[in-house]
This record gives sequence, C-alpha cells and structure tokens, in this order.
Amino acid sequence: MPARAVPTAGLDVGGTKCLGVLLDADDRVLVERRVPTPPGIDALLDALAELVEALTAGGGPAGAVGVGLPGLVDGSGCLRFAAHLPGVVDVPFTALLGQRLGVPVVTENDATCATAAEWRLGAGRGVDDLVLVTLGTGIGAGLVAGGAVQIGAHGFAGEPGHMVVQADGPPCDCGGRGHWEVFASGRGLGRLGRDAAEAGRADAVLAAAGGEPDAIRGEHVVAAARAGDAGAAAVIDRFSWWIALGLANLADVLDPALFVLGGGLVADADLLLDPVRAHFHGHVMAQTHRPEAPIVAATLGERAGAIGAATEARRALSP
Amino acid sequence: MPARAVPTAGLDVGGTKCLGVLLDADDRVLVERRVPTPPGIDALLDALAELVEALTAGGGPAGAVGVGLPGLVDGSGCLRFAAHLPGVVDVPFTALLGQRLGVPVVTENDATCATAAEWRLGAGRGVDDLVLVTLGTGIGAGLVAGGAVQIGAHGFAGEPGHMVVQADGPPCDCGGRGHWEVFASGRGLGRLGRDAAEAGRADAVLAAAGGEPDAIRGEHVVAAARAGDAGAAAVIDRFSWWIALGLANLADVLDPALFVLGGGLVADADLLLDPVRAHFHGHVMAQTHRPEAPIVAATLGERAGAIGAATEARRALSP
Repeated sequence: MPARAVPTAGLDVGGTKCLGVLLDADDRVLVERRVPTPPGIDALLDALAELVEALTAGGGPAGAVGVGLPGLVDGSGCLRFAAHLPGVVDVPFTALLGQRLGVPVVTENDATCATAAEWRLGAGRGVDDLVLVTLGTGIGAGLVAGGAVQIGAHGFAGEPGHMVVQADGPPCDCGGRGHWEVFASGRGLGRLGRDAAEAGRADAVLAAAGGEPDAIRGEHVVAAARAGDAGAAAVIDRFSWWIALGLANLADVLDPALFVLGGGLVADADLLLDPVRAHFHGHVMAQTHRPEAPIVAATLGERAGAIGAATEARRALSP
Repeated sequence: MPARAVPTAGLDVGGTKCLGVLLDADDRVLVERRVPTPPGIDALLDALAELVEALTAGGGPAGAVGVGLPGLVDGSGCLRFAAHLPGVVDVPFTALLGQRLGVPVVTENDATCATAAEWRLGAGRGVDDLVLVTLGTGIGAGLVAGGAVQIGAHGFAGEPGHMVVQADGPPCDCGGRGHWEVFASGRGLGRLGRDAAEAGRADAVLAAAGGEPDAIRGEHVVAAARAGDAGAAAVIDRFSWWIALGLANLADVLDPALFVLGGGLVADADLLLDPVRAHFHGHVMAQTHRPEAPIVAATLGERAGAIGAATEARRALSP
C-alpha cells in the first residue's frame, strides 16, 4: 500500500476533552472519538494513546499522528506553556508521545491546526492571507500569510488574545492587563453582562442567571438577547465592538483577505457577525481606501483542530 | 552589459523630502541625492523624475526604479492613502511614474522597503521572522515571516501604529482613538512631555521648550534627559513602556526572532533601547517560557527606504 493511503490520526487536546479523528488520504473523516482530558502529563499521554487505539481499532496503525495542544509549542515539539493544562509545562511532547505510540508524531498549537484545516478544507480555501480567530473561553488564532501557515520564529505566533487593547484595563488570567481576551472572549461576554447588570442595564440577563450577578456568564447574555431583551442586545453590541476592535488591530498589522471566526461562540454567529462587521469598518485604518476583508464563520466546527492536526502531520512527514 | 549589471535607482518619498540612491548590482550605493517633496501629484512626479535624472547623470539610464511611498500602496502600485501627502490619494503611481521615466517602476510602502533593506543588508540579515518598526513622527512597520517580506492581501500590512492599545485613549491623527502611535511615536513623546510638564513633573523639559507647555516636543524631553533631569528621565521611561507594549503585542501575534527599530528616534537608541527591552519582558505573554526576541537598532540609517526600494525593484523585475 503506498504511504499516502495509510490513514492519519489527528488529536485536539482541550482543557476538558480530547477529540480525535482518523483521516483518509483524501482528508475524509473515517472515525471520530473523544476522551476526557486528565490532569498531568503521564495521564494525558495514556489518554491520547487510548484515543489513538480507539481511532484505529480494527485497522492497521495510523501512518502518523498529529496533535494540537492548547498552548505554546516550540519548533522541537516541546509544550512550553499551557494555561489550561495545569502542571504540564516545558514538556517534550512530540518525543514522549512518539515513544508511547511508536509512530511519527507532529505537535502544533491547536489554533494553528484549526487554521490549517479551515484554510485547506474549510472557510479559507483559496486565500493566501487570512487570520483565523477562535472565540471560546479565551481567544486563539492562527495566521496564513503569503500562502503559508505562519507559526513565527519559535512556534508561538497567533496569540492576539494577549494584545493589550486597554492598557489600564482589567487583569487577564495570564497576569497581564487589558488584553483583548479580557473583553472579546466568552469570559469577556460574561464580564460585560455582569457590568451591565450591576449598572441596572441588563435585568433580563440577571434573571437568566437566577438573579445572581456573579453567576452571569456569556450564555445568559445570549439567552436574554435571543428572547428579545434590549439590554442584552446592547451588551452583545458592545461585545461585538470589542471583537471588531481586535480584528481591526490584526487587519492593520497583517492585512488579511479574510477573517475566519471559529470557537464555541461561533454557534451564535447569527447574533454576532453582522454587528462585528459593522463595527470593524469603524475601527480599521483608512477603511474607505481599502478593499473589504470579509469576516465569516468557520465551517469545520469543533473537529477543525483535530482535522488540521492530521493534515499538518501528513504534510510534515511526506515532503 | 548583462541586465544585472545595470544600476537600479531607489527613491524614498517622505513628507518633506525625497531621498534617492543609485545601487550597483552588488547593492553598493553609487550616488545619493535628495530633493524637497512638493505638494500635489504632478509636482511630485516632476520632482522624482528630476531626482532620477540627478542620480543617473553622466551614466546610462537606471535599469529599474523602485519607490517607497509613505502610505497604503496596493498590489497594482496605486497609492490608496497617504496621511502626509495632502491631495495625493487613489493615484496609480507606478503607471504614472513609469510613463514619465520610460523605465520599469516598482512601488511599495516605505516601511516595507526599509524592512527589505534591513533584512537583506542590515540589522536583520539571516533571520526568517522579524518585525521592523520605524519610530518617527508616526510609526511605520514591515514584516518578514517564514523567510519572505509579507505585505498582506492588498499591500497594506505593517501599520501597527494604528493598533488600538488604549480603547478610550486620546484621538489619533487618522481619526481613531488610543492608537499605539498616539503614545509611542515622536508625537507621542511630545505628548507625554506636555502631560508631565502640566502636572509639574518636568520643569526641565518645560524650560527646554522656552517655558511654553504647548511648545514641548519630543526633542525637548530628550535634551532634558540627556542633561540628567530626573523628570525627563521618567518621561523617557514611560515612553519606553509604551514602545515595549506595542512590540509585545506584535510578539504575541507574530513571534518574530528579532525586532529592528528604525526611524528618526533611533538617533536616541542609547537612551531608549535598554528601557524598551526591560519593559518588553513585562508585557509579552509567557515571557519566562519563550526565547528572547532581541530588540536592536537599524543599521542602514535614513537611506534604508531608498536602498530597499531599489532592491525590491530589481528583485521584482528579475525573477
């Protein structure tokens, strides 16, 4: 059997679950499985080995395994830092998982994997310069520039969630202050909802959270907005303003032809995309002199990271 | 004579002057000339034709002419917007100058040209991922990623001066608010100096400006700091903090191996570089887990843009 015809596994490691896919040589998903993400590196490696076993059960071994990790992965496949994988830091991930599995392993940042997938197979096909931004609990991103996925000098490119957008703003989980993620992530939407409720401008949001301001999360704002509440709609509008502000920063720096928005919040694309597009024009430099950069939703859903991990592994290992 | 041996002209169009160089095939500067920048597109084209004539006087015509323009230049060589060239907007620059000169013309953004020059011949040689930032009256920038100069989908990449870093901050000349350039450019240094003087924290700066707060410019802060004034040194430190903040934003997005600082303020690199480096570590994400990105001064001086315009033109026309 020629090497290209052996299936490739792709694993997307999240803070709570690991999602795996087995791709055939035509990038079709043959199998999909998931396991919970356990704490600690040894348990995580065990869980991933079990996931690969489940993906390939009944067939031959995968030709290669690609892994997307939620953190900074350097060029040697070492996971340098992951905010949501406690105790897993400066770990030579590619080497350890390769030993465990006995097949070639390629490790990259999870948003980079999702970017590769959306670029090659999803919303970004045919575009040489694009930015994918994943809006979830936090913000991730990946870059395509000049017709290539760009990961920077050390593999750490694509962390615009930690751009400062309000230098004297509220603290970020990472220890910084006023980062884009503080305002434009799922957590940011919850914060905007709480601020509005405390100011008496979002009673329906407060009610959706059981009357407890500290319990307000992004989903309560979305639920109240979907029920037609004007206060919640105003919070969504402000949230969209912050999303657009960061996208405009990225447009000023990178000038992409396209923005692809992924992550959990894309489930609410019908609420968010139009106001984000409208506010983007108000933020970006010289907007009347530049072609429009469309802002669209990702199309591969939650499997994008795993699919991209698999395609990246196959490409890295079949030059 | 083979085509490669014909000299190439490079022109750097600034808000007040145009600087031209003639490069030989080994990138040596054979001639350097400058002319004032006149208002209006017709007078500007006349001035550039005169500059090329002065560069090539006594020799044969240049094989090609590269031009760096202070604004947004699209892929067709159309100058779409230039804040400091009043009345010159949406002008098909490459076509008009090519008609005037009768030789091939290549037009790019001026900071992109400077980036190409510093990358190929200056402070950034041998590096595959770097960001050049020019700190002058405003802020310009150019990107090298994955071993190639990146100009984005429409030629407009590299405008981080208009990243929002303080969303509710003071207005920018471009009409936006709280942009990096408001704080971290030469104008920004003047603003920080005026703010400090008005707060009674920079008497020596005020004295250097003749006792008139509104007259305070960046150079007055620098002069007072060089004379040993502690208030002025504090303004320089805050200015460096803002420069470092924007560089850290760019590191989070692009992860360059190197930052090269150019522009007029680099004359004061001895005052600025150490505090910028120190503050950078405090701003950048996960700084204890990432290799250091050196921050160095550009080495080609004010000729970088013209030299890069020439090398870009030669490369574009000799594939």
